[in-house]
Amino acid sequence: MSQKPKAVILLSGGLDSATCLAIARDQGFEPLAISFRYGQRHQHELAAAARVASALGAARHMIADIDLRAFGGSALTADIAVPKDRDESEMSRGIPITYVPARNTIFLSFALALAEVEQAQDIFIGVNAVDYSGYPDCRPDFIEAFERMANLATKAAGGDGRKLTIHAPLIRLSKAEIIRTGLELGVDYGLTTSCYDPAPDGRACGHCDACTLRLKGFAEAGLTDPAPYAEPR
Amino acid sequence: MSQKPKAVILLSGGLDSATCLAIARDQGFEPLAISFRYGQRHQHELAAAARVASALGAARHMIADIDLRAFGGSALTADIAVPKDRDESEMSRGIPITYVPARNTIFLSFALALAEVEQAQDIFIGVNAVDYSGYPDCRPDFIEAFERMANLATKAAGGDGRKLTIHAPLIRLSKAEIIRTGLELGVDYGLTTSCYDPAPDGRACGHCDACTLRLKGFAEAGLTDPAPYAEPR
Repeated sequence: MSQKPKAVILLSGGLDSATCLAIARDQGFEPLAISFRYGQRHQHELAAAARVASALGAARHMIADIDLRAFGGSALTADIAVPKDRDESEMSRGIPITYVPARNTIFLSFALALAEVEQAQDIFIGVNAVDYSGYPDCRPDFIEAFERMANLATKAAGGDGRKLTIHAPLIRLSKAEIIRTGLELGVDYGLTTSCYDPAPDGRACGHCDACTLRLKGFAEAGLTDPAPYAEPR
Repeated sequence: MSQKPKAVILLSGGLDSATCLAIARDQGFEPLAISFRYGQRHQHELAAAARVASALGAARHMIADIDLRAFGGSALTADIAVPKDRDESEMSRGIPITYVPARNTIFLSFALALAEVEQAQDIFIGVNAVDYSGYPDCRPDFIEAFERMANLATKAAGGDGRKLTIHAPLIRLSKAEIIRTGLELGVDYGLTTSCYDPAPDGRACGHCDACTLRLKGFAEAGLTDPAPYAEPR
């Protein structure tokens, strides 16, 4: 039986959460990955999450079914066009329409349930306050407030001395720094997908906000993205 | 179009959440109810929630599908015997095995998503710290911490001045006080069900912790519970 402490990792199949999983493993945790089937318009990210969990040695990969489509209001779950070819100043204006209402709150709540059942005291989430400053639930204040709430919500807070920690190791890193960190830890970014609007075969569009930030990150790191794109780059 | 402010009400079909809905309506809110299909062993409580939402005039009743069974660990979703005929001193010892991991955190997160989409600034939850002191996520500290987190999580916190409030109007009331409040506001408790282990036809067992507390509440209020029980009372 493993003597490593368990950690729950929110795993989307994208670049950031794959790096997060590698960081948790490098810090000596036994990674338990959790992904969500939440009414995405495409299922490629769940396939990518499964590839990443396997490649990086997750001890468990749980896929939880939740239906965020019932809430409407986001281009990631409803039929609203994904914005393309925006520069960073355009992205930083206001809340992106790809924002899913309360998504990270819901995802962390499920991670909290899994942590409680698995007796894990650590949760990793790959949020980033640099590239995604428009998302309120990617900010350090939110992560700290969730951690505080979580420590009051669960049995752990009932007096047995355990304390739950929410780790957001990417929160202050640039995309290029995230990529360099992951490569040092052996992440194969060819297995990941970040695209909001992939082709039917899963290849990335290269033009949505997520692709734009990802490609810029690889360029700044002086590297080529190994993931497949619909157009040659 | 209604000029009333909207409020999201977590509605289980039990006595407490029905009272909560009536209180929200009495306070001038347009109630939007949300219930969960979360792998309960019985579906009677969703039927009761629908009856209550209709009888008390909810403007919307959303049922969200989430699968808490995947987490295991609770008598309400797994095949663990529900404890029977315990007195309150037995119930108050430790966390009940009917506790679902992080349940109220998950439920409130979904309520938060609905509030954001519906532009509601108020969420009502029927938690009670008196009768259910063994549940960590029924305590005032937890509710306050969730509210604080929620105000950092959503667009509401993005600078437009809206503030989200989590109302827990029953949190310090005895069961008898809850019942008297609901009756004054026109709640028909015959429509509600609280039982953890109902008969196949939906009638309450009369012996689980929820039935024990409910029957004691009616007795203390000098009233008879109008809900159907499997054994004559």
